[in-house]
Amino acid sequence: MTFDKARIIVLASRPEGAPTADNFRLEERELPALGDGELLVRNVAMSVDPYMRGRMNDVKSYVPPFQIDEPLDGGAVGEVVESQADGFAAVDLVLHGLGWRDLAVVPAKGARKVEREIDGVEISPSTYLGVLGMPGITAYGGLLRTAEFKPGDAVFVSGAAGAVGSLVGQIAKLEGASRVIGSAGSPEKVERAKESGFDAAFNYKDGDVRRQLKDAAPDGIDVYFDNVGGDHLEAAISAMNLGGRIALCGAIAQYNSTEPPAAPRNLALMIGMRLTMRGFIQADFRDLVPEFQQKMARWIGSGEVTWDETVVEGLENAPQAFMDLLTGGNTGKMVVTV
Amino acid sequence: MTFDKARIIVLASRPEGAPTADNFRLEERELPALGDGELLVRNVAMSVDPYMRGRMNDVKSYVPPFQIDEPLDGGAVGEVVESQADGFAAVDLVLHGLGWRDLAVVPAKGARKVEREIDGVEISPSTYLGVLGMPGITAYGGLLRTAEFKPGDAVFVSGAAGAVGSLVGQIAKLEGASRVIGSAGSPEKVERAKESGFDAAFNYKDGDVRRQLKDAAPDGIDVYFDNVGGDHLEAAISAMNLGGRIALCGAIAQYNSTEPPAAPRNLALMIGMRLTMRGFIQADFRDLVPEFQQKMARWIGSGEVTWDETVVEGLENAPQAFMDLLTGGNTGKMVVTV
Repeated sequence: MTFDKARIIVLASRPEGAPTADNFRLEERELPALGDGELLVRNVAMSVDPYMRGRMNDVKSYVPPFQIDEPLDGGAVGEVVESQADGFAAVDLVLHGLGWRDLAVVPAKGARKVEREIDGVEISPSTYLGVLGMPGITAYGGLLRTAEFKPGDAVFVSGAAGAVGSLVGQIAKLEGASRVIGSAGSPEKVERAKESGFDAAFNYKDGDVRRQLKDAAPDGIDVYFDNVGGDHLEAAISAMNLGGRIALCGAIAQYNSTEPPAAPRNLALMIGMRLTMRGFIQADFRDLVPEFQQKMARWIGSGEVTWDETVVEGLENAPQAFMDLLTGGNTGKMVVTV
Repeated sequence: MTFDKARIIVLASRPEGAPTADNFRLEERELPALGDGELLVRNVAMSVDPYMRGRMNDVKSYVPPFQIDEPLDGGAVGEVVESQADGFAAVDLVLHGLGWRDLAVVPAKGARKVEREIDGVEISPSTYLGVLGMPGITAYGGLLRTAEFKPGDAVFVSGAAGAVGSLVGQIAKLEGASRVIGSAGSPEKVERAKESGFDAAFNYKDGDVRRQLKDAAPDGIDVYFDNVGGDHLEAAISAMNLGGRIALCGAIAQYNSTEPPAAPRNLALMIGMRLTMRGFIQADFRDLVPEFQQKMARWIGSGEVTWDETVVEGLENAPQAFMDLLTGGNTGKMVVTV
């Protein structure tokens, strides 16, 4: 078996609004020779994440934009085929940032070795793209640090059946929330949120978000973890108790939009209610990772945290998986097996 | 001289949009007999403040609404005529909450004795309604606590010629701001802001706030002290540096509005830039008052802090003073001498 070529997905053109198949192209590209401190990795699973939509626009953001005719990238887990770096050997499983391809030459400093089992429990590689990976630390840090969650808080989470939202709700319960309310976009997702431990959940397509939230949280909310923006944010502001906190994680409702987004018209309520709204990205929580991994491994081992994956097979189907993600075609973490 | 009747301004009807003279009525009312623990106070000066507009609506807010045919109230300074409370005597000057009238029976626990001079500098009574009073502590606490101001921060303040905004700018400079930018609504106010120490100021009526702010703050801003809401807030979000903080103090642009306010359409920028937006009211800063008064008295004594007052004479003119305040007819603190 030789590994001189990689199959790889490039950005063919920038999406206007919702991405289409035309925006992507599968190519074969030569692999560079393996240099010192590098690993040749055969990807097992790759992540598609909402934030990638932002990188497809040619605008300044917290990560640089993808370039046309150049490979996409993102989180992936793979097996080391060949190592020219200390501390890594063939067959090691590694988490790294060169997804959207089957084979990658990965700098060792951009790779982290991950375990195939924790405390005797087998861990599937894709877990490191979800509950034990970026969505997990996003949920954990966003809730505990950004939103300054305290035991007894009532917590509202949008995207409650998504990779991040589902974990926010479960972590909040495990950390002592008085009540956890979720919103999602289908009856099945609402059901799934309730099964996973949310005290209440509603389908935002069923009617006015503000009223549904008031019904689900008659005593108000102390924390809102925002994955969607738009009318959810306005509804949450109206439902907040004194001193409430909003963690802004994402605004998926707006990612495909070509219009300025609907904005909350009730920000002035933040004054009298002394609300705090704060944006964050998961890279802010690097220092929390060890604590998070320890806790989450325990919760997984005990079955206290459960999670869903929507698995799409085949690198060639990654663009479609990404498009489906943006329209809510996933429950839990969306991953592509390579 | 007898004091059995007070002249007092009552809310005749609730304003729709901008208040008009019809919403107010001057009445004579019997004074209740002075009880134990009470003071009879002859007001010298009373405050009109933007927050009072909110109390004229029949909606839940952080202070209860004014009632129709009942007296308005608010900050006032007066002279004790008669005291039935320990620690107070005739001729004492007191700050209390029963403005909008010439005479008031004030519970001693709602009154604070204030000095006619500090360190040999004569202090006019109205100072306690402004720089040494609520606007002062609002500026101080909002900047240092809510916006977590740090030396070296670049600060933007709207309403820069108002009672609060003018002090925010000066306090920021005294506490080590790298640059202080203000916006105001007339060339005279812009000039006044610059005189008082703002590094740059612009007239928001001259053009797009976003562009004027970018020109005035080419290296961005770290703190925005928001007195107006609306397009200023959107412009500030766009100009913010990583980790920037917004203190929401007021939204005067919206107080008279019968339409939902224009909302910032760029809240999603808060995510990647890790911005924090937080509402507050001055009552949150009670614990800061001693520290504030000590510093401010020193700054006043040394001439490092200057301030303007727009003084209107006569209780009967208080409604007009209030209406003018809401349309920017004041420079600095608007007070009514009684």
